[in-house]
Amino acid sequence: MDKGRTEIAELGEFGLIDRLTKDFPVRNAGTVKAAGDDAAVIDAGDRYMLFSSDLMLEGVDFDLVYFPLKHLGYKAVVRGIGDILAMNGLPEQLTVSIGVSAKLSVEDLDELYAGIRGACEDYRVDLVGGDTTASVNGLVIGISVVGFVAKDMITYRSGAKVNDLVCITGDLGAAYMGLHLLEREKRAFAGNDNPQPQFEGYEYILRRQLKPVAPIDAVHSLHSAGIVPTSMIDITDGLASDVLQICKSSDCGVRLYLERIPIARETHRMAEELKADPVVAALNGGDDHELLFTVPVTRQGEIAKIGGIDIIGHITSPLAGARLVTPDGGEISVTAPGFRDR
Amino acid sequence: MDKGRTEIAELGEFGLIDRLTKDFPVRNAGTVKAAGDDAAVIDAGDRYMLFSSDLMLEGVDFDLVYFPLKHLGYKAVVRGIGDILAMNGLPEQLTVSIGVSAKLSVEDLDELYAGIRGACEDYRVDLVGGDTTASVNGLVIGISVVGFVAKDMITYRSGAKVNDLVCITGDLGAAYMGLHLLEREKRAFAGNDNPQPQFEGYEYILRRQLKPVAPIDAVHSLHSAGIVPTSMIDITDGLASDVLQICKSSDCGVRLYLERIPIARETHRMAEELKADPVVAALNGGDDHELLFTVPVTRQGEIAKIGGIDIIGHITSPLAGARLVTPDGGEISVTAPGFRDR
Repeated sequence: MDKGRTEIAELGEFGLIDRLTKDFPVRNAGTVKAAGDDAAVIDAGDRYMLFSSDLMLEGVDFDLVYFPLKHLGYKAVVRGIGDILAMNGLPEQLTVSIGVSAKLSVEDLDELYAGIRGACEDYRVDLVGGDTTASVNGLVIGISVVGFVAKDMITYRSGAKVNDLVCITGDLGAAYMGLHLLEREKRAFAGNDNPQPQFEGYEYILRRQLKPVAPIDAVHSLHSAGIVPTSMIDITDGLASDVLQICKSSDCGVRLYLERIPIARETHRMAEELKADPVVAALNGGDDHELLFTVPVTRQGEIAKIGGIDIIGHITSPLAGARLVTPDGGEISVTAPGFRDR
Repeated sequence: MDKGRTEIAELGEFGLIDRLTKDFPVRNAGTVKAAGDDAAVIDAGDRYMLFSSDLMLEGVDFDLVYFPLKHLGYKAVVRGIGDILAMNGLPEQLTVSIGVSAKLSVEDLDELYAGIRGACEDYRVDLVGGDTTASVNGLVIGISVVGFVAKDMITYRSGAKVNDLVCITGDLGAAYMGLHLLEREKRAFAGNDNPQPQFEGYEYILRRQLKPVAPIDAVHSLHSAGIVPTSMIDITDGLASDVLQICKSSDCGVRLYLERIPIARETHRMAEELKADPVVAALNGGDDHELLFTVPVTRQGEIAKIGGIDIIGHITSPLAGARLVTPDGGEISVTAPGFRDR
């Protein structure tokens, strides 16, 4: 190659996406929002259609040594529909494309599709197509999801206002700790003739890694309560990275209170056992599949009534930056690997 | 694995898809057509939305030794929008997801996206999202496309009627012969210290392989002429396989006339040089990215006026089967590898 070589790692994921997708003008009147949010927004008459795609690769996004194919199929769907939920929409259709290596049998794929089928049932999504191709390398799973939302209920990352409350569904860091546990047992297995995986007492964090639940109930509850969040994002890269996305898109700062970040007991216990920091798992672990959103402070009482949603901070002016307040009143800056502001 | 092992090759691609996607009930009223055609059909108010996904894997669908990344980006879009055109729709939005191996630089990806950008411009499609992930193996490209069609103009594979004319855009077998030429020169390159690729005089078949054109002009022409095909399919697996799909979906037979199948002069010449049969290339080669469609016999004059479209046969009763008539009046059965009727 003659024209110089820049390694992808130099740009980081967000920098790379920014570079590759610039200079793509929007040509169709129906394209309401192209790149830059959880899903694209397309005008579909009296509603908005939401459209999003994800790619999962063996050896990077999952390890078939410990990831049961049925769970993997389920998780791929959960991951796909999270992008629709994050726009305050509900998923309706999805395509699944797979690249299949010869090491997998038809029965293995039956398992994968049993998981996909289960998720389609749980979240009321229709499998409407896809592509099947041979892979000379590992398993590849591509998921594209279409969903819909009423036009006056669409929620972007960009609408957070000063004093809005910052809310999250579920708890954080558990999937990341579950992954660490699985990796530890895999290493133990590799060096042991008679392995006995030590999973007892860690069922919750394993489930969070292997069979996450999409927070569709929270979206239904918000709809029922008539609450339209001012901004929302799917927590997939970790709380830190995703709250910074909200700050960037909404041009605001944020104050999060460390002791309010919900972290499950098992997550704490596993972190202690592995000599890791559970707060780091919550901030940077990723794979949580929860929703981070903001609402006007006037909706505090209604949010509390819904249940399963925690208020962990509030939005500030952009000059105040993104700050995490520790229990002793100290403040630290929220940063995330790979994230570049502006 | 305890429950027996069926190799994927035993089922074939179509058999595998049928097995994996059965037992997926349709739950949403908006899902007009799920799997089984070129694209899914979703109700979008006064129009139908079309939705389709494709996956292309390095080492299977393309070889980076001779496939320039810019052309690859262009071709990936062409392949994606072919599914929308085949429903008589026009593409509007697409997502591109890539799995990137470390051997590729940022400049390489710039090339890939330059090709994607060129195709988005040529076909008036908006890039609206996607996913970027690291790949420990080769390059992975996932394309999902959304398009629209007026409700009274949608065309399925299933509407062909006895006596309808069978039409195709462009010519067939050229991309397949271009691929063979590229593979031959790659082998020559591997065994030669001072290689001089022998591409002269074969520019057309190379272009058909490396930078195919989506038949969007034909769809515009049909729209302008007020002709709604009774059935249509994207020719990607070869004429034989794709005409059999029409026969299966429409429950009909077909009579194709061998001497009417358009095959370019370069395709003939390359086939001769490689001691291959150009008709086999047209029937089973694949990668043509043309449209195969049927129209009532009353539209023959209008079709002739459009130009660039050949009438290669007509639809018959299902009992007559799928037959290819040779110039001497002989008949052979149309078959395709991997295709299972009913």
